[in-house]
Amino acid sequence: MRVADPAPAAAEFAAAQGVPLSKSLDDVLRDPQVQGVVLCTPHTQHTEQIIRAADAAKHVFCEKPLAPTTDECLRILDAEMARGRRLVQVGFNRRYDLAYRQMKSTLLDGTLGTPLMAHCAHRNPSVPPHYVGGMPITDTAIHEIDIVRWLLDQEITAARVLKPRRTSRAKPELQDPLIVLMEMADGALVDVEVFVTLAYGYDIRCEVVCELGTVALGNGSPVVLRKDNLRSDRVPNDFQERFAQSYENEVQEWVDGVASGEASGPSAWDGYAATAVADACLAALDSGERVGVEMRQRPAFYGQAAALAAVGGAR
Amino acid sequence: MRVADPAPAAAEFAAAQGVPLSKSLDDVLRDPQVQGVVLCTPHTQHTEQIIRAADAAKHVFCEKPLAPTTDECLRILDAEMARGRRLVQVGFNRRYDLAYRQMKSTLLDGTLGTPLMAHCAHRNPSVPPHYVGGMPITDTAIHEIDIVRWLLDQEITAARVLKPRRTSRAKPELQDPLIVLMEMADGALVDVEVFVTLAYGYDIRCEVVCELGTVALGNGSPVVLRKDNLRSDRVPNDFQERFAQSYENEVQEWVDGVASGEASGPSAWDGYAATAVADACLAALDSGERVGVEMRQRPAFYGQAAALAAVGGAR
Amino acid sequence: MRVADPAPAAAEFAAAQGVPLSKSLDDVLRDPQVQGVVLCTPHTQHTEQIIRAADAAKHVFCEKPLAPTTDECLRILDAEMARGRRLVQVGFNRRYDLAYRQMKSTLLDGTLGTPLMAHCAHRNPSVPPHYVGGMPITDTAIHEIDIVRWLLDQEITAARVLKPRRTSRAKPELQDPLIVLMEMADGALVDVEVFVTLAYGYDIRCEVVCELGTVALGNGSPVVLRKDNLRSDRVPNDFQERFAQSYENEVQEWVDGVASGEASGPSAWDGYAATAVADACLAALDSGERVGVEMRQRPAFYGQAAALAAVGGAR
Amino acid sequence: MRVADPAPAAAEFAAAQGVPLSKSLDDVLRDPQVQGVVLCTPHTQHTEQIIRAADAAKHVFCEKPLAPTTDECLRILDAEMARGRRLVQVGFNRRYDLAYRQMKSTLLDGTLGTPLMAHCAHRNPSVPPHYVGGMPITDTAIHEIDIVRWLLDQEITAARVLKPRRTSRAKPELQDPLIVLMEMADGALVDVEVFVTLAYGYDIRCEVVCELGTVALGNGSPVVLRKDNLRSDRVPNDFQERFAQSYENEVQEWVDGVASGEASGPSAWDGYAATAVADACLAALDSGERVGVEMRQRPAFYGQAAALAAVGGAR
Repeated sequence: MRVADPAPAAAEFAAAQGVPLSKSLDDVLRDPQVQGVVLCTPHTQHTEQIIRAADAAKHVFCEKPLAPTTDECLRILDAEMARGRRLVQVGFNRRYDLAYRQMKSTLLDGTLGTPLMAHCAHRNPSVPPHYVGGMPITDTAIHEIDIVRWLLDQEITAARVLKPRRTSRAKPELQDPLIVLMEMADGALVDVEVFVTLAYGYDIRCEVVCELGTVALGNGSPVVLRKDNLRSDRVPNDFQERFAQSYENEVQEWVDGVASGEASGPSAWDGYAATAVADACLAALDSGERVGVEMRQRPAFYGQAAALAAVGGAR
Repeated sequence: MRVADPAPAAAEFAAAQGVPLSKSLDDVLRDPQVQGVVLCTPHTQHTEQIIRAADAAKHVFCEKPLAPTTDECLRILDAEMARGRRLVQVGFNRRYDLAYRQMKSTLLDGTLGTPLMAHCAHRNPSVPPHYVGGMPITDTAIHEIDIVRWLLDQEITAARVLKPRRTSRAKPELQDPLIVLMEMADGALVDVEVFVTLAYGYDIRCEVVCELGTVALGNGSPVVLRKDNLRSDRVPNDFQERFAQSYENEVQEWVDGVASGEASGPSAWDGYAATAVADACLAALDSGERVGVEMRQRPAFYGQAAALAAVGGAR
Repeated sequence: MRVADPAPAAAEFAAAQGVPLSKSLDDVLRDPQVQGVVLCTPHTQHTEQIIRAADAAKHVFCEKPLAPTTDECLRILDAEMARGRRLVQVGFNRRYDLAYRQMKSTLLDGTLGTPLMAHCAHRNPSVPPHYVGGMPITDTAIHEIDIVRWLLDQEITAARVLKPRRTSRAKPELQDPLIVLMEMADGALVDVEVFVTLAYGYDIRCEVVCELGTVALGNGSPVVLRKDNLRSDRVPNDFQERFAQSYENEVQEWVDGVASGEASGPSAWDGYAATAVADACLAALDSGERVGVEMRQRPAFYGQAAALAAVGGAR
Repeated sequence: MRVADPAPAAAEFAAAQGVPLSKSLDDVLRDPQVQGVVLCTPHTQHTEQIIRAADAAKHVFCEKPLAPTTDECLRILDAEMARGRRLVQVGFNRRYDLAYRQMKSTLLDGTLGTPLMAHCAHRNPSVPPHYVGGMPITDTAIHEIDIVRWLLDQEITAARVLKPRRTSRAKPELQDPLIVLMEMADGALVDVEVFVTLAYGYDIRCEVVCELGTVALGNGSPVVLRKDNLRSDRVPNDFQERFAQSYENEVQEWVDGVASGEASGPSAWDGYAATAVADACLAALDSGERVGVEMRQRPAFYGQAAALAAVGGAR
């Protein structure tokens, strides 16, 4: 393990843990013992760094978004395909959450028939001051964009964004809440409530409606409290409380994949697709109209394997 | 109590119960002891019959829809207003359901802040063969049209209808499911999933999302079964199982209202508004576009009193 | 309908509703149009009044307990059997609650196999000042005594009462909570938590554990609230909120039974058995020991029919 | 890391992973780099092995039971106290389960007031052929014995065991189900349903009843399925599905504790107490009577610190 960090304090912290320091990313990439690289850099630097890592045949893990524009994403795809094997994984952590995995395996086992709709809600109690403009799409709905692609195993082809009455609790420059409507390639419809200043807690909901029944994220909490004329489940405070385990699974499975040379998990293609859909949503938010998603044809290189393989770990 | 029925069998059944028979509606209306009339006639006959009853100063209860067209509804409104007091009640039974009433009283007590959105689903396991065309709007979504007007205490101003991938279980001439999107006068947005051949049961869902929290119809059933690795609540089979009590409440409160001379419950105005919104939804289903609801200005005669008074009975 | 009431105010109220007044119970019983009598008298007067009504061949409904002692209960049984048909019904309202009825029908349909245990809790937020001594048995656990006899369709043969640590919220002369343990004729065991000053609400719980699964009263409330990091069902405030509908069903079915001449519902035998079991529980509370229930052999006259017939109305 | 295993296959497997092999436990204990030892040996060998490890000042982790008899447990306590610091941890994994930890922290935060009762159920779908005799106590209820000591932070002082009607699904030599009643030092009462052949699944339930409310393990599952007129949470199949995460937490926290030299988690005292209570339960099962728990006075050495410290990790 090696660490390269331009911030001296972070570098010293790593050194104090006994991790050897490198001067730069290139220094790390030159080390033949290094098999994979975790980029914790701003997404504006992802493209160049990922391409250099791919050129060095190293695995790369980076947080979403893969890159700021679809053009840059495509450059990454091209670099990866040029190496002939999957090297890039994007941090869509929800695919590693036990509950979403059980939804996926339920959909796959076929007892509910064909999925026709999905209803989602993404609710936060509050957002930081710098959260403005299109961030309800690019930072919040982006999770639903990825997860419905994964759950329904197909692309999103068009989007529309509706603006409900605004909450008085959001600052004036933020349209909150939003309803994002998405069309899937096979005609299934997805609606996503995005409401980032809904006081009561961090509540993530998702129900997929099929021909014979539905499967949804559960509502129950680890303990139930009876008090003051209420029988209550707890709603988490934030994404850490809700998704802590998924991050651990994500990193562990990435490490395992690097060790075995078998990349799985959200691919560069998934990163590209999410960016393309987010672009369509932003345009739809702007225009009030239905906007088609513009995407390159999916190369055979990216198969369907990643999505299906990732279910393997589900219980 | 008197019964008039053109069908001899029905008339004979009533007579066997000791109910005096009348030859015709006019015969009933001439009886000075009769205070109110329950019309169980096809809705195409409602307008003339209601107007005759109103002219005779009798209370009238009829099932939804009030009349087939908004023009006929307006004729009823005019006849009622001409009599100077409320005489007509339309059978929107959900306003008499304990759960919806608790939702309403929760919204009224103000602890959740302003409502911004409502998410509804109306799911039936199956529909009869004659259920076709616009009936998902006029026979099914019509309940949600009324109940969100009542819950949010305002008119619906525009509608849009989306067509998700069709279920293979519906007959070809039926677009099933649908998503109906409605805009309220104050900007709140309502989405309604209408899915009338969703195999698993009769499931009515409604969540109103406010600034500080949400209130929703509960999911629990009277008993919980643990069996075969499942902990299960029962989903009702049909509207009788789900709403039986609301029908009893509806009739009882109507009778009480007739006795006291104080009409409450869904008014002729509510019947007119539901028809106007349904017309907009049908046009939207046809065109795929957003359609504004065309309605006369609400006369002071219909106040806001009905909706609020009806909450009085809620626990 | 006739009313006899020694309290002038009550009598005048009834008269004002247009109900003819009678001077005394005997006056009522002499009226050949009267088919049934509802006794709203102190239970110390039940025995004589019921026997007089039975002698007059009138149906009688009275609240629990049937009579203060098992000896008096047996006099009532003898009087009823002497008339040759069932005339007496005791007010165990829970048998008319939809949820208990669904439990009963689930147990009867056989899919869960033989019942082996039942876990019950009877929780009140508070009790009035005059609630002391054995009242946790005679006024509170008495409901569970009846309902488990009915659910499991057999007699209780022995009881034991345990005294947990006392709550600091009860007055010193009240042992609260209690745990009542009861043995059924076939060996099934029942435990009942009786806790009458448990602050959070009126909460009635019951789970019957069978060989293949369990069935329990549900926990859900009509609406669900999301607020302040909680997703909450409401716990009722008191027995009126929880059991209002059961009282209406009880009276309606009694009236129907009187009209048809077919008595159903909790019989004089059920009233006798509950008193006998309560006596055993009181002795067990006193002694700390296991106490056998002393009961006369069940006469064929009382069959098993009542319990099973009452399920007929369940959905 | 070193492995010593008398079974050649296991030893070879470890060697293949690159773990150095030792010939014997003593060989391991002589290695100055070894700080802690995980015993995966039969519990009949625990006592000698633990004492040898303690003599070598190594930390020891072993599965429950600590030792077959309380006398052997006391020898372990003495050996540990002779070394002057805590070295032994027993594998009561439930203390590492998120849900039990939330129960504990809820009880500690004081909003519910004093605990007065606990209701538990330990249900298995089936047991292996060698599961007989007292194993419902020593292998099954043993978990509840430990967890209620931990949740209520006090010793169990007496026990009684009731025998409900036996299920026809258990083999004749097994009394199944059982109800275990336990008295806590402060008078709180605990009832535990132990039912190891209850077909429907692995279901662990626990509710602590306090003066102002209750806290219980939740019932919800990660996903909710709507199908066939049911809205269902999944009940786990077995303890692995239910408690997998707790085992990971347990090992990780033990390793962290060894590294820091700060032992926490279930102590040798907890192992001794569980064995003493199990002995009382076995005697009570045999005699049908209430049996007092015989235990040495708790040495100051074992403080109350362990139980409280372990809550630190709870969310």
